[in-house]
Amino acid sequence: MSLIVLGTLALDTVKTPFGKRTEMLGGSAVHFSMSARLFTGVNLVAVVGKDFPARHIDFLRRKKVVTSSVIVAEGKTFRWEGEYRGDLNSALTLNTRLGVLSAFNPVVASHQRKIKNVFLANIDPDLQQRLLTYLHAPRLIGVDSMNFWIEHKRASLLKLLKKAHIYVANDQEARSLTGEHNLIKAARGLSAFGPAMVLIKKGEHGVLFYAQKLIFSLPAYPTDKVIDPTGAGDTFAGGLMGYLASTKKLDEAALKRAILYGTVAASFNVEAFGLERTARLSRADLDRRLARFRRCVSFWKS
Amino acid sequence: MSLIVLGTLALDTVKTPFGKRTEMLGGSAVHFSMSARLFTGVNLVAVVGKDFPARHIDFLRRKKVVTSSVIVAEGKTFRWEGEYRGDLNSALTLNTRLGVLSAFNPVVASHQRKIKNVFLANIDPDLQQRLLTYLHAPRLIGVDSMNFWIEHKRASLLKLLKKAHIYVANDQEARSLTGEHNLIKAARGLSAFGPAMVLIKKGEHGVLFYAQKLIFSLPAYPTDKVIDPTGAGDTFAGGLMGYLASTKKLDEAALKRAILYGTVAASFNVEAFGLERTARLSRADLDRRLARFRRCVSFWKS
Repeated sequence: MSLIVLGTLALDTVKTPFGKRTEMLGGSAVHFSMSARLFTGVNLVAVVGKDFPARHIDFLRRKKVVTSSVIVAEGKTFRWEGEYRGDLNSALTLNTRLGVLSAFNPVVASHQRKIKNVFLANIDPDLQQRLLTYLHAPRLIGVDSMNFWIEHKRASLLKLLKKAHIYVANDQEARSLTGEHNLIKAARGLSAFGPAMVLIKKGEHGVLFYAQKLIFSLPAYPTDKVIDPTGAGDTFAGGLMGYLASTKKLDEAALKRAILYGTVAASFNVEAFGLERTARLSRADLDRRLARFRRCVSFWKS
Repeated sequence: MSLIVLGTLALDTVKTPFGKRTEMLGGSAVHFSMSARLFTGVNLVAVVGKDFPARHIDFLRRKKVVTSSVIVAEGKTFRWEGEYRGDLNSALTLNTRLGVLSAFNPVVASHQRKIKNVFLANIDPDLQQRLLTYLHAPRLIGVDSMNFWIEHKRASLLKLLKKAHIYVANDQEARSLTGEHNLIKAARGLSAFGPAMVLIKKGEHGVLFYAQKLIFSLPAYPTDKVIDPTGAGDTFAGGLMGYLASTKKLDEAALKRAILYGTVAASFNVEAFGLERTARLSRADLDRRLARFRRCVSFWKS
């Protein structure tokens, strides 16, 4: 089954202790697509400005990402500029220029409206909500957000969460939205807003999965090569949702497998700037790393 | 095989968002003993003052902890007072009164000098070093320390680490001693100081094990019941070292099992003040929780 993702297409300028890149292709929907495409057909819903380099659209198409619902609008493409210092876990945003994003009205091509799996990557929750109105009967709705929307559009986000099946949040967002410091309590609180499944991303500490009768926890892939973490969370979500779209099951084994793929995909993302590593990622790369990861996180003989 | 532990016996006053306890029995060697005793005979090397309540020594003996190398010295018992606020991960030390600890000269009863497993819990590294001179041919030397010694007795600690087989450190200590932020790099740096095995404790995020050809990572037991984390790291070390002392092996399977026991033991420690939960802990309690934990951290069928 294929998948539809709403999110940002961006030009990212990123500085880390390991170097700097200017106006790279980035954005939540793009990082998501780089891992999701390894499992299923990915349909992108996004907006860019007239200044968006045509080579980026060509690149996405070469990667089998369907761009028929990418709007090219009058104005400038969304740009983000950030810096990571000693602690590569959190970015310092230096500049955000919304450009065409501020008047974005997502549309979904008619042939895409029957797609059953949807991921609403980080973007205005009102736009996330609007996208759902286009879809006929989605089987699996995943949602991501960020602190900005939690602070400024809390009511919209809570309304959206009632319809979500999976909410993917980082630890800060989970705490901020629920007021709970303990992550199990926070996950339970998020689930009470609607989503049956909650995934809390803890950066270098891995992920916590919460459902009413099932909690599990996976460390991050242990690596000493962290060059640029931008998009790691989206790459994780892409592996997760991509795998779930490719399988018909949503049982414990499928969810655990999806989280493994998301984790391993994210570990490739952080090893280079932007898409430099994930653009040339293959399913075989994922499976090879997964086999190595197994020894690091298997504590019972299997 | 039995085990010898050098560390502190203390009277702890602790305040958390869930209440306050005054002058509870505590200290690194005591928390360690509460879990280690479930696996092996524990021999305590420590000092207390004349003011130390006799009931605490009786309690330790009832728990089968051998106290023949506990010195009762002129003066006051070591006291620690701390508080945990919103983030129960780190304590705010309000008061430390060393008392008899400042002139402590550990001795080891002659019948204890052939003991093969030793844990040097958090205490002045010069005392940790001195204890080793009593022992004939230890098979396994575990070391813990704290930021105070890293800052004030770095040379002594580094000298000690040359003799250690396992160094147990928390993430801050690992970073501070090596100057590396990335925990894999920090673990590698610590191992270069001497210990073949390094265990980095990450509080609510679990532990990272590092050896030259083996890295593995285990999340903490997922719990929403954190009342008082004082001594969680020592309880972890007690489960780890206790299990390793009880088995003759030091292979991957034994190390992983030891880390599981340490993790589960620590999860009981945080559920109540001081020793309120771990004093009545049984091996069966550990095994039951271990079975539940298995489902949370097993990502491959086994």
